[in-house]
Amino acid sequence: MTAEESVSASVDFYFDFSSPYGYIASHKIDALAAQYGRAVTWRPFLLGVAFKATGQTPLPQVPIKGDYARHDLQRSARFHGIPYRHPSRFPIATVAPARAFYWLNATEPARAKALARALYAAYFTADVDISSAENTVAVAAQAGFGADAARAGINDQAVKDLTRVEVEKALAIGVFGSPYIVVDGEPFWGQDRLDQVERWLATGGF
Amino acid sequence: MTAEESVSASVDFYFDFSSPYGYIASHKIDALAAQYGRAVTWRPFLLGVAFKATGQTPLPQVPIKGDYARHDLQRSARFHGIPYRHPSRFPIATVAPARAFYWLNATEPARAKALARALYAAYFTADVDISSAENTVAVAAQAGFGADAARAGINDQAVKDLTRVEVEKALAIGVFGSPYIVVDGEPFWGQDRLDQVERWLATGGF
Repeated sequence: MTAEESVSASVDFYFDFSSPYGYIASHKIDALAAQYGRAVTWRPFLLGVAFKATGQTPLPQVPIKGDYARHDLQRSARFHGIPYRHPSRFPIATVAPARAFYWLNATEPARAKALARALYAAYFTADVDISSAENTVAVAAQAGFGADAARAGINDQAVKDLTRVEVEKALAIGVFGSPYIVVDGEPFWGQDRLDQVERWLATGGF
Repeated sequence: MTAEESVSASVDFYFDFSSPYGYIASHKIDALAAQYGRAVTWRPFLLGVAFKATGQTPLPQVPIKGDYARHDLQRSARFHGIPYRHPSRFPIATVAPARAFYWLNATEPARAKALARALYAAYFTADVDISSAENTVAVAAQAGFGADAARAGINDQAVKDLTRVEVEKALAIGVFGSPYIVVDGEPFWGQDRLDQVERWLATGGF
């Protein structure tokens, strides 16, 4: 890669729609990258599939650590000044919102990001269970994307296939948690690595 | 607790001698707390015992995530400007250094901290396997504590009992990882929560 290509390469932002720390990072990553002239490619994946591959247990089910995590993720949202209401159902399967994202992303990545933000806000501030395809469609409709188009998009076999391929690609490069941010091949796991992401962007590595 | 007692209460710093992130935090926690007029009580515990209690797997053994962790902990040390050489044997059992610490701590907590820093430096910069009682004794001797006294301390039944009690107390309050920092009853897991620890100290909570 030449220096010029490196400067313009986008930052990859992998996240799961059920991940509170992914939600926190989604509020910060684009502005952070923009400071260094970089765009961000959003890449929702399915944490449940990644957990099976690595033999991990969802945080809420880990004794003691799960209780801490429930406390920490709400405190972390307050720390960063981001609205947060812990969902009644947590975690949830997120194939419906992932498909909704990839439905739009193929043609309009900027609108796909707007939809992703609306879905995250619905789940983490308004307690909407977006594991339901109809709830995901309703969020898309409320955000101006059209219920019928969104429903058709989620059910489109090509969108389903694209989503599966994207999840497989994420697993193939070793994405095991959310958020997972890749800058010029360097991986960073967790919203608490945004300080290192920033220095990597500023310095080209350390 | 009155406001005055609260101001003077020490910060609890739980760590395992085999924990790279505990090692990183050990370089920062006292100076951080001192900015807010607070002392730090160091409380080594045994992560292996905590992992059994919570059903966790040591990081290096977790597929994919373990490889990331090996990379991240060295990058995190560089990020914080802390010398780090990944030990040949990792992780290790740390009952010997924990006993050496509690041997001194009962009477001279400041010297116990100095010994803890020497043990951490031996393991994480000079590749000394401090799981060996004799290596721990050698580190203590080199740091000026006297080999015979250190050896006798580690083997003292009262010190062994005290160490076991301290580990049990840590588990009883829910310490599941290293570092684990408690400020006025509020728990923070990970060196990457020092930003939140600092704001908690500055503001009294958020």
